[in-house]
Amino acid sequence: MTVELISVGTELLLGNIVNTNSQYLSEKCAMLGLSVYYQTTVGDNRERMTEVIRTALNRADLIILNGGLGPTEDDITKDVCAEVMGVKLIEDADIRSRLADWYRQRNRKDIPESNWRQALVPEGAVVFPNENGTAPGLALEKDGKTAILLPGPPNELYPMMENQICPYIQKRESGAIRSQMIKICGYGESKVEEMLLDLIDSQKNPTLATYAKTKEVHLRVTARAETDEEAKQLLKPVVKEIKKRFGAAVYTTDEKENLEDVVVRLLKKYELTVTTAESCTGGLLAGRIVNVPGASDVFREGYITYSNKAKRKILDVSKTTLKKYGAVSEQTAREMAAGGVFATDADVCIAVTGIAGPDGGTEEKPVGLVYIACYLKDHVSVEEFRFQGNRQKIREQTVVQALDLLRRSILKNYKKD
Amino acid sequence: MTVELISVGTELLLGNIVNTNSQYLSEKCAMLGLSVYYQTTVGDNRERMTEVIRTALNRADLIILNGGLGPTEDDITKDVCAEVMGVKLIEDADIRSRLADWYRQRNRKDIPESNWRQALVPEGAVVFPNENGTAPGLALEKDGKTAILLPGPPNELYPMMENQICPYIQKRESGAIRSQMIKICGYGESKVEEMLLDLIDSQKNPTLATYAKTKEVHLRVTARAETDEEAKQLLKPVVKEIKKRFGAAVYTTDEKENLEDVVVRLLKKYELTVTTAESCTGGLLAGRIVNVPGASDVFREGYITYSNKAKRKILDVSKTTLKKYGAVSEQTAREMAAGGVFATDADVCIAVTGIAGPDGGTEEKPVGLVYIACYLKDHVSVEEFRFQGNRQKIREQTVVQALDLLRRSILKNYKKD
Repeated sequence: MTVELISVGTELLLGNIVNTNSQYLSEKCAMLGLSVYYQTTVGDNRERMTEVIRTALNRADLIILNGGLGPTEDDITKDVCAEVMGVKLIEDADIRSRLADWYRQRNRKDIPESNWRQALVPEGAVVFPNENGTAPGLALEKDGKTAILLPGPPNELYPMMENQICPYIQKRESGAIRSQMIKICGYGESKVEEMLLDLIDSQKNPTLATYAKTKEVHLRVTARAETDEEAKQLLKPVVKEIKKRFGAAVYTTDEKENLEDVVVRLLKKYELTVTTAESCTGGLLAGRIVNVPGASDVFREGYITYSNKAKRKILDVSKTTLKKYGAVSEQTAREMAAGGVFATDADVCIAVTGIAGPDGGTEEKPVGLVYIACYLKDHVSVEEFRFQGNRQKIREQTVVQALDLLRRSILKNYKKD
Repeated sequence: MTVELISVGTELLLGNIVNTNSQYLSEKCAMLGLSVYYQTTVGDNRERMTEVIRTALNRADLIILNGGLGPTEDDITKDVCAEVMGVKLIEDADIRSRLADWYRQRNRKDIPESNWRQALVPEGAVVFPNENGTAPGLALEKDGKTAILLPGPPNELYPMMENQICPYIQKRESGAIRSQMIKICGYGESKVEEMLLDLIDSQKNPTLATYAKTKEVHLRVTARAETDEEAKQLLKPVVKEIKKRFGAAVYTTDEKENLEDVVVRLLKKYELTVTTAESCTGGLLAGRIVNVPGASDVFREGYITYSNKAKRKILDVSKTTLKKYGAVSEQTAREMAAGGVFATDADVCIAVTGIAGPDGGTEEKPVGLVYIACYLKDHVSVEEFRFQGNRQKIREQTVVQALDLLRRSILKNYKKD
C-alpha cells in the first residue's frame, strides 16, 4: 500500500515551525510496512488544498492528512477532503455530546457556533475520539482509496496514531507485520551499515532500516508474514545475529527506552548513586540524567567545574597535574572523576574535560579533543575522543559518549552473565 | 513570485530524519518576500521525481530543490530536473577543476567515475560554488520558470543559501525588501499577537510574522519598497512602536543573537561573573550559558543540588527553611541563590528549584511550579512560575525564564539609560 502524507498549515509554509509530524508519521508508516512515496505541505487555502488532495488520491492508495481540523474558520481540511471525495458532512451526535462535555469540564461558555462544526463528519467515516483535544480523527474510504484525517498538535496526534490509527491500519492489511528496535551506541551509521552489509543486501524479509542519531544508530528490523507468530519467528534470528555483532554496544531493544533511561535503570538495579564533574559540557550531562523521572534515587548532586580553579577547589585536582598535563588531559579527567566521588557520597562519578571550540585548540590538542573518565569501585576508566563538528555538536557527542561509558562501566563491574 | 520547495531523499520518506531544510528555506523565502505555497518531499526515484518536478513547474514560478546532488548513482535530482525542463547537461571545466582540487586536498585517490558527474551542469545554468562540499548549487531558467537546485546537507545548504542564493533572488526581484528581527522573552505567541493586533491587521507593508519558541516569540517585520532606503524608512516606525510596546522584554534585534548570547554579553560588559545553583533543571541552565563561546570569562563553576542534602551541604540552605517551606519554595530559591554566591567568588547567582514531574506534585504545589531566584549586589529577586507540559518542557521553559531573569536583573542594576 502506498501512502502520501499531507500536512496542512500556513505556519509550516512560512517556516514558523519545523514539520516534525511528517517525520513521526513516516516512521510509523515504515513500522506498519507502508511505503510513503510523497510528503506534501499546503496552507489553509481551499483551492490549493483541493488540488493537493486530488493529486494525492490519484497517486497513492492511502492519504494521511494532519492539521486544519480545529474549530476556527481557517480549519477546512475536513470540508475540502469530503468535497473532493464526494461525501457529504453530517452531524455526529456522539461527537457533539463529547464536545459539550469537554467545554463543560473546562467551564467554557459562549462557545462560538463555528466550534460545533467539529461535530460534523463525512458520511460513513470511522471516527477516532480525541483524548487530548476536541477534533476527532476520521477515516474515509471511497473508490478503493482511503483518507485518514488527524489533528495537528503532537500531543493529540501521537496518542491517536499509536492507540487508534495504527491498529486500524494493521487490521486492514492482510498478513502480519512486526518490527524490533535495536539501539546501538558508539558506532557511526556508515560503520553499522558496513557491518550489516550482508544482511541489508541479502534480506528482503525482514528488512533493516537505520536511523542515525548523535553518536547512536537505531536499527529497525521489520518482518512480514501471514501470522504474527510467523513474523516473530522471522525476526528472531536476524535480531540475534545483529545483537551478536554489536555486543555490548547494543544498549537497548526497547523502543521507548533511551540511553539515559538505561543508565538510570542500571544504577537503580545495582543500587548505585552517581555524581558528575563537567567541564566542557557545562551541565548538559547531568541535565540528561535528571531528564529521567525518578533520577533523584540515583543522582543527588553534580559539579560544573569550568575553570582550573574550580577543578582544584571542588574536585581537588592537583596543581601539578593541571600544570604538567593541562586541563584537557587523561590525568585531569582521572583526578576529576576521583575528586567527584570524594567530594560527595556517590558511588560513581563521571567526569568530562575537553575543548569544544571554536577557540582554544592547538596542533597537539585540537578542538574536539575530549577526555571522559568514570570512577567506579576504586577504578577509573578514561577514554579519549576526537569529535568533529561545531561547539554544540562536540558537546552533544561528549554527553552521549559519557552516558555510554557510564553504562559500560557498570555492566563490566556488575553483569555476571 | 510563488514558490514550491522540493526535498529529495528516501531517508525523509522513511522518517529517518526530520526535514529541517524545508523550515529553513521557508523562513528564508518569507524574508525575501516570496510566497511558498507548497512543500513536497519525494524519494530518489526517477519516475516519481519527474512527476513532482513537472507538477511543481506547473503551479509555481520558482521551484527550489534540495538534496540528491551528491556523487552516487542515487543522486538524480540534476538529471531529472534538466530532463523535465528540456535542457541538456554539459561538463563545466571550472567545476571539474574545483572537484579535482577538493579531492587532492583531502588526499582522495581512485575517485569513482560517477563522482565526476558532479561537474555536469544544465546548459545555461548559473553555478553557485559549494564552499563546504563538492556539489555546486545551480539555477536554471526556462519558459518563465526558475529551478534552483541545492545540496541537502545543512552545512553546505545554509551558507550557500545565505551568501549566494538570497542575493541572486533579490537581484532578480524588482524593488527592495528588508526585514528586521525582534526577539521577545516572557510572552506567549497569542499574547504578542493580541498586543500587536492593530499593527498586524492594518499593515500590509511592512508585514509582521511571529515565530513561537519556548517562552520566546520572534517577530519578523518585513518591508518592500522601490529602494533599500525606502524599505528601511518603512521599517523604522513599526520596529520602534513594537519595541516600545514590549519594553525590556525585547532582548535583542540581532538575527544571530540568542538569549544566552545576550546574557553572556551583558555579564562581560559589566564585568560580572555568574554561578548557577540548579535543582529541577539539573545542569541545563549552566549548559546553555556554557554554550556561548568564551563563556569562561564569566562562568567558572556551577552546582547541581538535586537532593535536599546537597542544597544544605553545598549552598547552606537552612534545615528550618527546607522543613518549613519545602525544597520548592520562594524561601529555598532565595537561600540557594545567596548560597551560590557565598560558595563561589561569583558576583551573581541564578538558582532554580521546581517540580518537573511527572510525580511529586500536590494540590498546593502542582507539577510545573518553579521558583527562580537571582542574587545580584546583595539583592535577591525571586519569581514564581507555573509551567504547563511534560517534564522536558517544564525544564526547558525554566531555563529560558532563568536566563531572562538574569538578563533583566543585570539591566535593572546597571543600565542607566
